[in-house]
Amino acid sequence: MARHDDLLKDLGLDVELHHRIFDAIGRTFRATVLAQKNRPARMAYFDGVIDEAHGGRVREIVERRAAGDKLVGTFCIFVPEELVLALGAIPVALCGGTSLSIPYAEKLLPRDICPLVKSTVGLARANVCPYGPIEDLAVGETTCDAKKKTWDLLAKDGGLHVIELPQKKGPRDRDLWLDEVRQFKSRLERVTGRTMDPGKLAAAVRLMNRKRRALGRLNDFRKAARPPISGLDALVVMQGALVDDTLRFTERLEALDDELEDRTRRGTGVAPDEARRIMISGCPSVMGNWKLHALVESAGALIVCDETCTGSRYYENLVEEIGNDPDAQIAAIAARYLGITCSCFSPNDERIEAILRLAREHRVDGVIQYVLQYCHTYNIEAVAVAAALKDAGIPSLKIVTDYAESDTGQLRLRVDAFLEGLGR
Amino acid sequence: MARHDDLLKDLGLDVELHHRIFDAIGRTFRATVLAQKNRPARMAYFDGVIDEAHGGRVREIVERRAAGDKLVGTFCIFVPEELVLALGAIPVALCGGTSLSIPYAEKLLPRDICPLVKSTVGLARANVCPYGPIEDLAVGETTCDAKKKTWDLLAKDGGLHVIELPQKKGPRDRDLWLDEVRQFKSRLERVTGRTMDPGKLAAAVRLMNRKRRALGRLNDFRKAARPPISGLDALVVMQGALVDDTLRFTERLEALDDELEDRTRRGTGVAPDEARRIMISGCPSVMGNWKLHALVESAGALIVCDETCTGSRYYENLVEEIGNDPDAQIAAIAARYLGITCSCFSPNDERIEAILRLAREHRVDGVIQYVLQYCHTYNIEAVAVAAALKDAGIPSLKIVTDYAESDTGQLRLRVDAFLEGLGR
Repeated sequence: MARHDDLLKDLGLDVELHHRIFDAIGRTFRATVLAQKNRPARMAYFDGVIDEAHGGRVREIVERRAAGDKLVGTFCIFVPEELVLALGAIPVALCGGTSLSIPYAEKLLPRDICPLVKSTVGLARANVCPYGPIEDLAVGETTCDAKKKTWDLLAKDGGLHVIELPQKKGPRDRDLWLDEVRQFKSRLERVTGRTMDPGKLAAAVRLMNRKRRALGRLNDFRKAARPPISGLDALVVMQGALVDDTLRFTERLEALDDELEDRTRRGTGVAPDEARRIMISGCPSVMGNWKLHALVESAGALIVCDETCTGSRYYENLVEEIGNDPDAQIAAIAARYLGITCSCFSPNDERIEAILRLAREHRVDGVIQYVLQYCHTYNIEAVAVAAALKDAGIPSLKIVTDYAESDTGQLRLRVDAFLEGLGR
Repeated sequence: MARHDDLLKDLGLDVELHHRIFDAIGRTFRATVLAQKNRPARMAYFDGVIDEAHGGRVREIVERRAAGDKLVGTFCIFVPEELVLALGAIPVALCGGTSLSIPYAEKLLPRDICPLVKSTVGLARANVCPYGPIEDLAVGETTCDAKKKTWDLLAKDGGLHVIELPQKKGPRDRDLWLDEVRQFKSRLERVTGRTMDPGKLAAAVRLMNRKRRALGRLNDFRKAARPPISGLDALVVMQGALVDDTLRFTERLEALDDELEDRTRRGTGVAPDEARRIMISGCPSVMGNWKLHALVESAGALIVCDETCTGSRYYENLVEEIGNDPDAQIAAIAARYLGITCSCFSPNDERIEAILRLAREHRVDGVIQYVLQYCHTYNIEAVAVAAALKDAGIPSLKIVTDYAESDTGQLRLRVDAFLEGLGR
């Protein structure tokens, strides 16, 4: 990753340790993403988003903060970005995707919780996350036991707002969630020192919908007989979506979509026609974590769909563009986010319906259920997902893993065997 | 455990497998609980509750069902027993405390979730739980990720009611919980075919409060310089509380309390005066699971307090006896249960306050935090608990374990070292 020693030093980070960790991430990025052949030319921008995540992007946020805007760190796609954007604040997802920061978290947290939580907390505790020192508000949520209780420990330091997700989707749950969204808006108003303007909120809703449509359009190309983009590259785009400036990202994504449209029309695929079409379903793969995607695609398959938080759950369903009535706006935003089919909900049949629909639309040959180790909700829900896929005649494989390299050989064997067994 | 082959066969159970599992539990019970010296004479009744849990108790429930009463199986102390009792139904906790049924659950569930959930599901799937075939309603809840998502899998079979616990304790959470309690009441009315009678509900509230007071009184004797009852025996009483007939249990407990009062007055302790006084804090130890208590007390310490679901969280705080107004009654019940300081809540500072208070009241020399393996909420909250105990000058040890015997040697070493290090 690009080096910005002066910036990192100014922020008070441990620059040496930062480079040790992020040089390793950069090497993995080059060995996986950048090593691919036949990439769309306009992926260059998104490679740059990853490369500058701890450099140019931080620098521009520092400048915006100097001009009075605020940085809001998030850890989950349930945080309504529209509210953040409408107040002129900057939403950035701070989830960790590297195993290298995990030892720093394990000084505080138990070992047997999910690598994403540990990696995230580790980046902060190792003093290598450039967003930590400039973050005006961090936003946690109660989506899972590990995150919920980790927030309890971190909340003592202040500057953390915890949004409560309900666990069902009944009428009282909707009331509770609506109230949580309202409270989040109030907290943001206090942090930014600004009052929510309905016109600006309507514009933010339109911008986020535009971003979601552009992501959806990219994803539609992956339904083609010859998908014009790899699963790894689609993932890189999604990872960029969580940190980059929303408008610039959307414009560059629309340009990439145009290129993908052209490639699709010309029949320029990224994999041989006989490559098996795979859906990844389950946990997110955040920046730094290209492990499963690289493994599956280096085995000769093509990932054509991600039913994950770094996939369809982020961009499917738009916020209703309802005009400038503040209450109606907030209600429309709350409704869209409560529609996310996270495994934190009980029951969660909507997710299984979504998986089956996506499998049909993307004509997948098989589904790999991706479970971050110790993520109970996706791990247990995988039983129902596997059964539904079996009923639909779609083979599936469950992979439970963390961010370490130690099980790569074993995973490769399992993935190879799964791919070989897929009929056409 | 007592043999009732005819009964188990009538219920369609796998009688041979049942005996293989429960004879082993019986051996453990004899080697731990019954092997203790200087026990209160009136513990005999509670030993019998354990012994007849799969015999006499089932028989009397079969008879009551023949007379029209219903059996309601529970898995958590959040289920308001008052509502069950007021409708003439029978609440019985069905949580599993044996490792021997776990392999039957692991055919369905992931291995890396908590042993209590796996043991419970395993008993049902191995067809050795006599309550399964006669249960008119099972009641799950959303207290943790593992249980919540397990209910999703089991709900397909029907006959399962899932109560949603909120994750915070704010005003909207109280609304949601009150509504959940009301819905549970309605479900019970449908299952029993009876309508809630305010007079009967008031009587059930009084009975449950009487039971809690009797348990609290037992616990008060454990504050004495020479506690008249061991931690193992107090645990056996608590385990009985979760399955036995409420009125009979309470009457026999009151008789035991009288004996304990007498023993306390006469200075009849169950351990040498120099025995270290220990609090167990964290996860429950349900019937079949005497592992930690036996280990700690066989090492020469005395457990004088359980801050667990099979301890103070079950009996502390009464339901306000508010008269016969149905709405006020339900609200009072809901309020009492939402006061439980389970680690599922965020934040949960009330629990830490309770631990410090109990540690003072019971004059403990040290606290052992008991975490069932893969229970994220207690495991992570243990960090804050340990810090608070350290600030208060109280040594603590965290033990993460499952129901297996394989780590007993290692745990014994750790417990011995902890006890040796406790000053007086």
